[in-house]
Amino acid sequence: MAEARTDHPLERMVFFSDAVFAIAITLLVIELRPPHLPHGASDMAHWRALALIVPSFIGYAISFWVIGAFWMGHHRVFALAAHYHPRILAWNMGLLWTIGFMPFVTAYMSLNMGEQVPTTLYCSEMFLTALFNLKVNRTATSPPMVSEQAAPEAIAYVRQRAVVMVLGTATAVAICFIAPAWGQYGLISIPLWRIVLKRVSRVWTRNPR
Amino acid sequence: MAEARTDHPLERMVFFSDAVFAIAITLLVIELRPPHLPHGASDMAHWRALALIVPSFIGYAISFWVIGAFWMGHHRVFALAAHYHPRILAWNMGLLWTIGFMPFVTAYMSLNMGEQVPTTLYCSEMFLTALFNLKVNRTATSPPMVSEQAAPEAIAYVRQRAVVMVLGTATAVAICFIAPAWGQYGLISIPLWRIVLKRVSRVWTRNPR
Amino acid sequence: MAEARTDHPLERMVFFSDAVFAIAITLLVIELRPPHLPHGASDMAHWRALALIVPSFIGYAISFWVIGAFWMGHHRVFALAAHYHPRILAWNMGLLWTIGFMPFVTAYMSLNMGEQVPTTLYCSEMFLTALFNLKVNRTATSPPMVSEQAAPEAIAYVRQRAVVMVLGTATAVAICFIAPAWGQYGLISIPLWRIVLKRVSRVWTRNPR
Amino acid sequence: MAEARTDHPLERMVFFSDAVFAIAITLLVIELRPPHLPHGASDMAHWRALALIVPSFIGYAISFWVIGAFWMGHHRVFALAAHYHPRILAWNMGLLWTIGFMPFVTAYMSLNMGEQVPTTLYCSEMFLTALFNLKVNRTATSPPMVSEQAAPEAIAYVRQRAVVMVLGTATAVAICFIAPAWGQYGLISIPLWRIVLKRVSRVWTRNPR
Repeated sequence: MAEARTDHPLERMVFFSDAVFAIAITLLVIELRPPHLPHGASDMAHWRALALIVPSFIGYAISFWVIGAFWMGHHRVFALAAHYHPRILAWNMGLLWTIGFMPFVTAYMSLNMGEQVPTTLYCSEMFLTALFNLKVNRTATSPPMVSEQAAPEAIAYVRQRAVVMVLGTATAVAICFIAPAWGQYGLISIPLWRIVLKRVSRVWTRNPR
Repeated sequence: MAEARTDHPLERMVFFSDAVFAIAITLLVIELRPPHLPHGASDMAHWRALALIVPSFIGYAISFWVIGAFWMGHHRVFALAAHYHPRILAWNMGLLWTIGFMPFVTAYMSLNMGEQVPTTLYCSEMFLTALFNLKVNRTATSPPMVSEQAAPEAIAYVRQRAVVMVLGTATAVAICFIAPAWGQYGLISIPLWRIVLKRVSRVWTRNPR
Repeated sequence: MAEARTDHPLERMVFFSDAVFAIAITLLVIELRPPHLPHGASDMAHWRALALIVPSFIGYAISFWVIGAFWMGHHRVFALAAHYHPRILAWNMGLLWTIGFMPFVTAYMSLNMGEQVPTTLYCSEMFLTALFNLKVNRTATSPPMVSEQAAPEAIAYVRQRAVVMVLGTATAVAICFIAPAWGQYGLISIPLWRIVLKRVSRVWTRNPR
Repeated sequence: MAEARTDHPLERMVFFSDAVFAIAITLLVIELRPPHLPHGASDMAHWRALALIVPSFIGYAISFWVIGAFWMGHHRVFALAAHYHPRILAWNMGLLWTIGFMPFVTAYMSLNMGEQVPTTLYCSEMFLTALFNLKVNRTATSPPMVSEQAAPEAIAYVRQRAVVMVLGTATAVAICFIAPAWGQYGLISIPLWRIVLKRVSRVWTRNPR
């Protein structure tokens, strides 16, 4: 019988993280309360009942894609790491903490759509997640964790993505203070920041030569 | 200490997908609310209380087997893929999004059995899932992702299954507009479509020769 | 970059099963509703509130160990299988279906402790699970799935365990018809059946020689 | 097609444990009930509503880090084990049982903050978990399970950590009897016990030579 493959703690940490991401993303649906109408209710009554929970659908969709984006980032980062270092454990746990908290802030925001406190709490949670993500990202793509085979461009790319998440979530927090009802839509700035940073890094790469 | 096996992003994506499928399929049970009768209630009262939630049992059973069928399809498809391509990530995330949404549409349909809006929403969700599934299926069984060892017949078989899911769920949506109470039973056409397509493909394979 | 390890469908099926077992076993806790007493309630009031949910604790504990026993059986069986055969997929899905349904029957039994209908439903669910388990067990430890390295005694042992589960759950169902309040305690017969079968098989092995 | 990797039961047990830990840690969030205020409620009203559930936030945070600490311990222990022995299965199942029960004791304590019974129950659960953890720890780092490559210092370190968890949770239980409102803060003694044991073991190692 072969030796167990439990000797590589990096794999197990990645696995545990995947499970937490998967559970958090799937638990979001629990906060969606399906309407229960009396038997024989008209179709119009059904549409109206669904219309009332549209904020919950929006909250569900945004949070699904944000958790998905963080998972995809985690996925990309650890594809470049090959060695384990105990330092990563606590930071990754912090990231999972903020991910695991998302069903709560999503539900609170959805139940109180457009209000300043819930929206600001939601966006701040996203910002905190982005900060933990940045730290995990840096630790995993630096020695001693980074793989010797990882291409410098690939490392630069995943690091840029983590910075983009910080800028996008910071934009959302900033909007909360000006126009609370639109705070979470600040997350849409994430792809815009990606374009900005891509240009900036191109200029920066060209100029020093 | 050996290198970590986190360098193959395909495995990790498959793993994450498995976790989401497993959680969604198990969360279905949460929507089943067990009756709580006063102490000493008669057996007949218990049978009546259970009879009242029969629609929930039917909804649970159908959704369990539909999510199961999509998982089995995912399973078959990725057994034929050997290489990772970033293109798959977003489509697979879309598929997981529709899978993760199933506990909601199942509960909504079960609470309002036979009504047009909930049934149509349920069947449309199934149809959308089938479309994402088809796209993931095609991407994973085409170059550059497909394994060089994958037999052409095996590829043709899994692709046919994805088309069958699209046809079966489209049948369910169509029935919703004619006889809403029977919409979800349109999903039973899935095995029928499988037989039809098997015959069509046999004719199609024989004739060109 | 190495080839993905997604080419062995058996591993992935085992993985998916593990996830469903793990979720079902952990979801049991959701049905335990913590008492919420007014601030300053006496310790005695707290003990009384906990005493009221003792049936839920018993239900939780029994179901945890029964799901755990089925998982341990699954674990032992697939340690002896080395080849994949599509036939296993549907039977295993049936097993997962009954496992995923356990939080419901557990909650229903706990809420209506000692009543005939809920207890009989609970024990019948266990019996159905044991039947699916037996079928999965037989399929995985027979050609073409069984490993060539699997010792005949190991195969005989895991098969006996599956038969024990069928006998133990059948005992529980039988008791439900005589003394419903004691039905689920019939599961305690599981270790007794194990001893009986061990003796029977020893006699049976000795005599033919 | 390669042989399946399901032949090593240790990996599968570790995997199942990871899934249970991940689900328990993520389910904690379900007990946090987001406040739902009437549309147009003042920011102050929102802050007050959040202030009311501060005990739930504290409970969530403490339990998240305690489950996280037990998972990190499990992670470290099994990185040192290389062989499977059936003896570990039941003890590990006991550990998972106490882990899976944590969402209940957390919610009960959070709903009745500062009361003796809920706090004592919570701390006792932690203590019981620490005892199971110690037993799993010892079994996995002793022959026949321990890896031949495991350094004696690494074994000593993870064993010390398990003892620290027992001492820290025992401290919390002890405080419950004196000042129930502060019981769970006794868990903060965990890092203190780590420092104490480190010194003691250093003295103990130096003296015999």
